[in-house]
Amino acid sequence: MKKEVIVVKIGGNVLEDPEKSQAFLETFAQLPNPKVLVHGGGKTASALSERMGIPPKMVNGRRITDADTLEVVTMVYAGLANKKVVAQLQALGCNALGLSGADGNSIQAVKRPKGQIDYGFAGDIKEVNCCGIGSLIAGGFVPVFCALTHDGKGQLLNTNADTIASEVAISLGEGYSVKLYYCFEKNGVLNDIEDDDSVIRDINPKKYEKLVMQGKIAAGMIPKMDNSFHALAHGVSEVAIGHVRSLQNPAQPYTKLSLHS
Amino acid sequence: MKKEVIVVKIGGNVLEDPEKSQAFLETFAQLPNPKVLVHGGGKTASALSERMGIPPKMVNGRRITDADTLEVVTMVYAGLANKKVVAQLQALGCNALGLSGADGNSIQAVKRPKGQIDYGFAGDIKEVNCCGIGSLIAGGFVPVFCALTHDGKGQLLNTNADTIASEVAISLGEGYSVKLYYCFEKNGVLNDIEDDDSVIRDINPKKYEKLVMQGKIAAGMIPKMDNSFHALAHGVSEVAIGHVRSLQNPAQPYTKLSLHS
Repeated sequence: MKKEVIVVKIGGNVLEDPEKSQAFLETFAQLPNPKVLVHGGGKTASALSERMGIPPKMVNGRRITDADTLEVVTMVYAGLANKKVVAQLQALGCNALGLSGADGNSIQAVKRPKGQIDYGFAGDIKEVNCCGIGSLIAGGFVPVFCALTHDGKGQLLNTNADTIASEVAISLGEGYSVKLYYCFEKNGVLNDIEDDDSVIRDINPKKYEKLVMQGKIAAGMIPKMDNSFHALAHGVSEVAIGHVRSLQNPAQPYTKLSLHS
Repeated sequence: MKKEVIVVKIGGNVLEDPEKSQAFLETFAQLPNPKVLVHGGGKTASALSERMGIPPKMVNGRRITDADTLEVVTMVYAGLANKKVVAQLQALGCNALGLSGADGNSIQAVKRPKGQIDYGFAGDIKEVNCCGIGSLIAGGFVPVFCALTHDGKGQLLNTNADTIASEVAISLGEGYSVKLYYCFEKNGVLNDIEDDDSVIRDINPKKYEKLVMQGKIAAGMIPKMDNSFHALAHGVSEVAIGHVRSLQNPAQPYTKLSLHS
């Protein structure tokens, strides 16, 4: 039987609130090894952008990453956000090691081709280096990924953290039984966005389609769901979406995704 | 016989000039493994500080690191500077992996006690985790350290890059024969600061004392020299100060430090 590994993506609303972040990190630190954390940092990046006189540009919830913005996200994601998380996890006895996709060549991407929208220095993942990440895990390190990749030619690229989480999970599937957990402030995918108790416990692609048709899946949730089904279709054993609490307590409701009904 | 490792500290004036930086990184990438790189990023940090309306405060050439300044140096050192270097080295076929002292708990420090001057979040190194760094090296990674450490209690600390280089070199001395190389724009320690050909080829502590008395050692060079002799006294096999060129070509003059005449 393959050894288990858990890949946790933590949402910005949790990480960028000192109290919620501390509670999450305490929970994450207590999870058994091996484990991997993936985080963003969008709100902090937008705040720094504003402060530096570079107005953040977003299209369909995605950041337009011009050269100045790439510097901002590199500073915030790989610098401020990543190192704070790593230092806090170390204080909690978790041997965190922060990574961008350039470090150890762990995630290579290609610059997104200009279509109707030019996203600038945005990267679509080409290859995850499962050997490199695997050797860090085997060495007792807990990889903490920020939302940056590189193109292998010296260029850093801004890459969606949800996608990094699913692609890293898929690549680890070769050697491990992988659980992917999208962790955020809500209890899961909700039937009624206003009612945190209305968690939909199980979603398969058919039900997902129906929920989208009914307008019950928020726009921001769609890429997360697509990444989830993609991961399940490519060897990830289990994908869940839920609150930090459900990482600790399996009795806490959360949304479990599956390919079959 | 112990395996050799080279620890290279690269000065800010080289790293912060795109052309010189590229030339240096090409040279570094060609050095045989295992190897370690240590860099600063002070000029970029000061520029960002100014842009954010946080005037940099320096006393005796050292930065006063208040809470805002710590955020700036974390963004610049661990984010912008470190990830650019890592991405460029990866493009050159060097399997670089960027680290702050918090990553993998590689360097613990204590916050410098308030004396006559309060340096703020400045860290004096307490312990280098040679096992952790050693396991990265053994895994084929090339550690690239920025000038940040942590206190093990969740606090990042700003730490002099020259000192990080010497302490990492000392810690690796347990398992390796270590060469420490302070690499900058000059050809070495100069007899006449205006004449780049006046390299002093060998310096021992007695000669160093004499040169200081004669006013021939620039103020900025003194901590580098002190770190160098400290490293030699604690198991580092060889310490050199010189131009990037001398890393490639041993016929190029440089300053070699030794404990004995």
